[in-house]
Amino acid sequence: MALVVQKYGGSSVQSADRIKRVAERIVETRNAGNDVVVVCSAMGDTTDEMLELAKQVSPNPPEREMDMLLTAGERISNALVAMAIHALGAEARSFSGSQAGVITTPVHQKARIIDVTPGRVQQALGEGAIVLVAGFQGVAQDTKDITTLGRGGSDTTAVALAAALNADVCEIYTDVDGVFSADPRIVSDAKHLQTITYEEMLEMAACGAKVLMLRCVEYARRYGVPVHVRSSYSNKPGTVVSGSVEDLTVEQAMITGVAHDRSEGKVTVVGVPDTPGVAGRIFRVVADAEIDIDMVLQNVSGSSSGRTDITFTLSRDNGPTAVAALERLQAEVGFEQVRYDDRVGKVSLVGAGMRSHPGVTATFCEALANAGVNIEIINTSEIRISVLIRDDDLDVAVRAIHEAFKLGTDEEAVVYAGSGR
Amino acid sequence: MALVVQKYGGSSVQSADRIKRVAERIVETRNAGNDVVVVCSAMGDTTDEMLELAKQVSPNPPEREMDMLLTAGERISNALVAMAIHALGAEARSFSGSQAGVITTPVHQKARIIDVTPGRVQQALGEGAIVLVAGFQGVAQDTKDITTLGRGGSDTTAVALAAALNADVCEIYTDVDGVFSADPRIVSDAKHLQTITYEEMLEMAACGAKVLMLRCVEYARRYGVPVHVRSSYSNKPGTVVSGSVEDLTVEQAMITGVAHDRSEGKVTVVGVPDTPGVAGRIFRVVADAEIDIDMVLQNVSGSSSGRTDITFTLSRDNGPTAVAALERLQAEVGFEQVRYDDRVGKVSLVGAGMRSHPGVTATFCEALANAGVNIEIINTSEIRISVLIRDDDLDVAVRAIHEAFKLGTDEEAVVYAGSGR
Repeated sequence: MALVVQKYGGSSVQSADRIKRVAERIVETRNAGNDVVVVCSAMGDTTDEMLELAKQVSPNPPEREMDMLLTAGERISNALVAMAIHALGAEARSFSGSQAGVITTPVHQKARIIDVTPGRVQQALGEGAIVLVAGFQGVAQDTKDITTLGRGGSDTTAVALAAALNADVCEIYTDVDGVFSADPRIVSDAKHLQTITYEEMLEMAACGAKVLMLRCVEYARRYGVPVHVRSSYSNKPGTVVSGSVEDLTVEQAMITGVAHDRSEGKVTVVGVPDTPGVAGRIFRVVADAEIDIDMVLQNVSGSSSGRTDITFTLSRDNGPTAVAALERLQAEVGFEQVRYDDRVGKVSLVGAGMRSHPGVTATFCEALANAGVNIEIINTSEIRISVLIRDDDLDVAVRAIHEAFKLGTDEEAVVYAGSGR
Repeated sequence: MALVVQKYGGSSVQSADRIKRVAERIVETRNAGNDVVVVCSAMGDTTDEMLELAKQVSPNPPEREMDMLLTAGERISNALVAMAIHALGAEARSFSGSQAGVITTPVHQKARIIDVTPGRVQQALGEGAIVLVAGFQGVAQDTKDITTLGRGGSDTTAVALAAALNADVCEIYTDVDGVFSADPRIVSDAKHLQTITYEEMLEMAACGAKVLMLRCVEYARRYGVPVHVRSSYSNKPGTVVSGSVEDLTVEQAMITGVAHDRSEGKVTVVGVPDTPGVAGRIFRVVADAEIDIDMVLQNVSGSSSGRTDITFTLSRDNGPTAVAALERLQAEVGFEQVRYDDRVGKVSLVGAGMRSHPGVTATFCEALANAGVNIEIINTSEIRISVLIRDDDLDVAVRAIHEAFKLGTDEEAVVYAGSGR
């Protein structure tokens, strides 16, 4: 008898009919002899409707109350799924994140899970019930206020529960059939991956693959929870995320896939005095605005002017805030200007295999050059190469790299769609 | 500086605009120098929408999950009101029933409040915040499951919080201007009552006056909480419920008003063997089905047949259940048949004054006789007379009694509308 944690996204529970189908799958898993814990996101459009109401009553709603409001969505969907399971003759009990022992930091709207104390979940499992836990939410350790985990929070809830319950697997049901060697909407022969290591999945997620959020994969890796990404709408095998790059043999280690990201913007601080400490001041200002930066390029000071340019990328959402923060620093630091460019895209090649195969970077750059794509910034890790290019070149670049590394398959591809919380 | 508890019903918060108006009233109360605790019901149609979803996923949803589902409604409305208050520049914090310390019995869908431990509410008040508490909900003492209080539950939440916080007043905002000497939709010169004692209000509520629910008035009386019923849509003075009939002087004691009730049905058990214990068996069966009965009539056994009829009234909602339960008893007890009649209505006269004025019953019956209304059952308490009549006669009877006791006024009446939770 295994313990299975299943997570269903917002589109899987967006109507009464879909909720009933999800309930059938849950009861099948239970009838196959497993203990089952289920985490559901809010129903399809619920969150958007609540956000709209909030906007109508307040131009700038307090984050504590936004969390109180939004967590009602998961409460509704989980209770409805519990009812649908009950209608199929199985016992089900739903718990809020707080009731299920999901303890978080007190940062509203983007809390992090500190601990999971699933005593009530275990008791209900022991009494033979299927347990539903509202995803995306928890309770702050000290203040006891309700918190939300931010984007991808329901996936993280599922993985954290799986870790705390020592579950055999965490199944993430979504609207795609798993992880592919590239986005099938761009690359028609993209290959379905049956397995992928945590490190490779982390790099893919960090580089724009939307199937799993970064934090969820980080959590799974830290606690060694096998994550099985599957489609809610088919019985295809999906992709299992588990194991470490370190444990792969040279034969197993391969190039995994190509990820791309259209969500970044590029900031260039022009004419920065080339004196020690200035770059640090610039990045401190951005960090103080709680903005994460991704790729960084500092041009070598090429002229005798004693000035250089500093370029970095960040989420487009944060672009205006970062520019404003830097402009406030201009007089003090004495740089010439701040430029912002949101017509950029990032394409990345990920794979444990590149550790043992020199020449991957060369092949990568040649492929882009042959496709006529100009590289603006390049950034690498042990198992990843990323480049910043024009966003108009992104599709061409993904196909060129996928082709150059022979990542394709003859199988028919399935199209990606958007992802939920 | 007073401590004021305010309760707003579902229609008062049914849209973003109404929520903003409610927020203005709350902030005015705060700015007048009061500590303010607010209890809101769910937004207008939320509950109906949730009930519809529940019906779509399950023909018979478990009550535990219904409570989990429905309590999301108050969570949403309270968070939105907190946001609207915040937008007006005041600090507000919303709490779920559980967070506010509303401890109940474990009976889902109709829990009763056992205790209120409002530590977090007091702390937030101490920090200068306006506090919002989700009405209609609590947490079961032993199981820690979420419960709901049933109809009128938000009023009861407000009164219970007022009692636990030792508040100066509990203001119940509704869509009527207070308590009247009769339903102004039926009696055009119905008089607005500025004050009413707990006992009189209890009798009025028990007899169908919908402005306050029975349990809420019982709670207020037990803890001596003054309840001020007011309109959300005007600044009229409303009605204050406080004080005891015992403390009224003879001059103060008056006839309060006429209440009517269209929600009852009449069950007659025909041909019951007139032997000791049989009536007890009949009422036990009804009680075991958790059905409250109201008026009872047992005809004197007039013939030599040794059989009698037992008639009682109950809520129409419970009619079919009661009939089915009694029919299962038929063979065992040996009565002839069970009849059910839902074309009945109840009209009641309430007032402390009738204790010291003989002849009230006579005037009451004469008024009905003169209006051509036939009495089927009569039932009295120290401060009330109620009769069961045909439902078609109800409006005529209310007007006749109101006229006979000269309860009218020259002021313009305001029309009643439906009541929320």
